[in-house]
Amino acid sequence: MKDNDDTRGYLISFEGSEGSGKTTQISQMASHFESAGYDVVVTREPGGTPIGEEIRRILMHATESVNMFPETELLLFAASRAQLVREVIQPALDEGKIVLCDRFMDSTTVYQGVARKIQSGPVHLINTFAVGEVVPDVTVVIDIPAEVGFERIRHRVNDLPDRMEAENIEFYQKVRNGYLMLAKAMPERFVVVDGELSEKEVTSQIWKELRKRVV
Amino acid sequence: MKDNDDTRGYLISFEGSEGSGKTTQISQMASHFESAGYDVVVTREPGGTPIGEEIRRILMHATESVNMFPETELLLFAASRAQLVREVIQPALDEGKIVLCDRFMDSTTVYQGVARKIQSGPVHLINTFAVGEVVPDVTVVIDIPAEVGFERIRHRVNDLPDRMEAENIEFYQKVRNGYLMLAKAMPERFVVVDGELSEKEVTSQIWKELRKRVV
Repeated sequence: MKDNDDTRGYLISFEGSEGSGKTTQISQMASHFESAGYDVVVTREPGGTPIGEEIRRILMHATESVNMFPETELLLFAASRAQLVREVIQPALDEGKIVLCDRFMDSTTVYQGVARKIQSGPVHLINTFAVGEVVPDVTVVIDIPAEVGFERIRHRVNDLPDRMEAENIEFYQKVRNGYLMLAKAMPERFVVVDGELSEKEVTSQIWKELRKRVV
Repeated sequence: MKDNDDTRGYLISFEGSEGSGKTTQISQMASHFESAGYDVVVTREPGGTPIGEEIRRILMHATESVNMFPETELLLFAASRAQLVREVIQPALDEGKIVLCDRFMDSTTVYQGVARKIQSGPVHLINTFAVGEVVPDVTVVIDIPAEVGFERIRHRVNDLPDRMEAENIEFYQKVRNGYLMLAKAMPERFVVVDGELSEKEVTSQIWKELRKRVV
């Protein structure tokens, strides 16, 4: 966690269901921070490194005929994260940069832990092993009702829905509840923003919160 | 572990440095067991499933320009193993088959734990998470001096040495010592065979031991 050491950067993770608008908002925040004079690194999970992107392909494009078990999925996400932390995030923080990460460790807690029901003990241990000391300074959750995320995804026409996005509405509900539980348990780290507001309004709310904490 | 339940098969893992002759011996044991009337499944790690083989490609063909961190490597091996146990090994054991596995959980203990110096606590926890209840009934270690393994690998001409095999001689020494330590700690599960004997003699010794325990 942040310890007021001015030579270290900030890690800000963005979380939320598919369709919550994370990617758009991260791009907005990158511009805002750059305009304020910061060096910004934008990355994503799974992926963000050559090895991580290969892992991402396995995770996202496993066809329905291939039954990936929840334990396998958890370990693949953790592997991608372990590489990203050591290859990209830690070096950027050491150089005083702002790192904006599209999903991070809380995705595993929520998706594999809460929604797929892997016990919280192993999820926490494997998460901790993967990230080491690198915990986000701020985590922004863009909160939308399950039905809204589901509908937005259905209308993405540029791509077949991938494996994660093909889950049903109950799964989206569990994911949403999982994030809200985490935010309630760790209010000092989490910021929850209403993702049903206009895109501009969401941007404005997130920037207001991040400015208070970072700039 | 085996609990004298006749309806369950046997899991036999084969371990040893690169160049120890595991693959040859596994093929011999498969023939021996089949001749004795058993249904045999031969598999390998990392790999053994479509997802596992994709993970294997990432592990084996990461070029030297891509620095894979030990934590990433450990988690990728574990992911491949989690899938293999649930997709192949457990169902085969449930059908009473003999499963011969080229490397299993002890490879992680030795390669990532002892040789790459990841702490034994996380290695054990992640191994346990990956395999669940599926621990080998017998583990055969084909023991060769580090120099011998290294030399045998150098003379393989059909393939470029992969990332694991490109390690130096000290690494081979640590791997060998790691296996011998495990075998000493768990003599009821481990069988150590001298891999410098002739191929035929190694086959005969392994078969003698496995017959005692399985047939």
